[in-house]
Amino acid sequence: MENRGKVSEAVVRRLPVYYRYLEELAAEGLGRISSQELGARMNLTASQIRQDINCFGALGQQGYGYNVAELKRRIGEILGLDRAYNVVVVGAGNVGRAVAHYHGFERMGFSVAALFDADADVVGGSCGGAPILPMGELKKYVKAHGVDIGVVATPASAARDTADLLMRCGIKSIWNFAPVDIAVPEGYAVQNVQLTDSLLILTYHMKNDT
Amino acid sequence: MENRGKVSEAVVRRLPVYYRYLEELAAEGLGRISSQELGARMNLTASQIRQDINCFGALGQQGYGYNVAELKRRIGEILGLDRAYNVVVVGAGNVGRAVAHYHGFERMGFSVAALFDADADVVGGSCGGAPILPMGELKKYVKAHGVDIGVVATPASAARDTADLLMRCGIKSIWNFAPVDIAVPEGYAVQNVQLTDSLLILTYHMKNDT
Repeated sequence: MENRGKVSEAVVRRLPVYYRYLEELAAEGLGRISSQELGARMNLTASQIRQDINCFGALGQQGYGYNVAELKRRIGEILGLDRAYNVVVVGAGNVGRAVAHYHGFERMGFSVAALFDADADVVGGSCGGAPILPMGELKKYVKAHGVDIGVVATPASAARDTADLLMRCGIKSIWNFAPVDIAVPEGYAVQNVQLTDSLLILTYHMKNDT
Repeated sequence: MENRGKVSEAVVRRLPVYYRYLEELAAEGLGRISSQELGARMNLTASQIRQDINCFGALGQQGYGYNVAELKRRIGEILGLDRAYNVVVVGAGNVGRAVAHYHGFERMGFSVAALFDADADVVGGSCGGAPILPMGELKKYVKAHGVDIGVVATPASAARDTADLLMRCGIKSIWNFAPVDIAVPEGYAVQNVQLTDSLLILTYHMKNDT
């Protein structure tokens, strides 16, 4: 099933939000939902909802609303949740450990298989059931196990080198938590998670709205 | 210094990014930068940069570019970084601990003063130099110390009650890491950090672009 042409990044950014809300609705046992009701929950207009969902083909019927299970399944499929992912984390500090322990990943098909760290004192331990291995074993590990996503949880100074290393090992997707943006060449994917950005948006609103 | 009218949420979202890049430029010792050069670094057009920065008054001179230190100071001020913030974290699990240990907050004026947890086994310990206190002491603590920001790092099931409690204690701003969106009444500010959202944007791009 192909998407209709190129989807805007703004729509892509909303897709995981749809998915989360549809999961909540399914857990509540709701079978159908109208664009009005879904919009009210998500703080979007009904017309925005219909427009977004139309990007991916006809998934609702005028007057009948959306089938919650079907829409959740379809958006999950668009997001790539119709398969499992092997994940490794580089950097077994607080952020790397929090990612390795994060609840909810497993359920969606993500499995943190191993962590890697440059610090010999940390290597040999384990985290959330996954072993902490020395950096020198990364390449061999990726070759042997197949890894889909590499998490960068190093200090800023090591982040870009770490991402390069992960890509040289054959990993196509980088999820970066270091406080520096990482850019990747074509054919690779990256998401930069900048925790301080959201903190500063909060302080902006504290200053201007509270 | 007042901002010129209402600034769009898209611009607000870019402000912390400008701030980070300007910090990098200042650390590199750069005194001035043109909108072209800044745009190239940030992957934005020069005209986008000029438009964004114009929202906050005349900060550059045609042909001279921007003064890096001055622009950083001004954007920092707009973001509310011209003061210090007392932060408490509710939930001393992996996410709460990662936030309490996160490097870079301290430098920007954020100080995690205490963590709170419902688990008696965790209470009494400390994290990043801050004590882990019982939930029952939260109200008294906030009254005695003054707290600006409450971090929600509880399981999803406890998140909304925790946010309500923080607000009843007099905290105006909520930084939420639980995997459920929190809404706040007028006069309060919230930022919901949904780690899985960025992971699903990554898998979307893996599926569609790699």
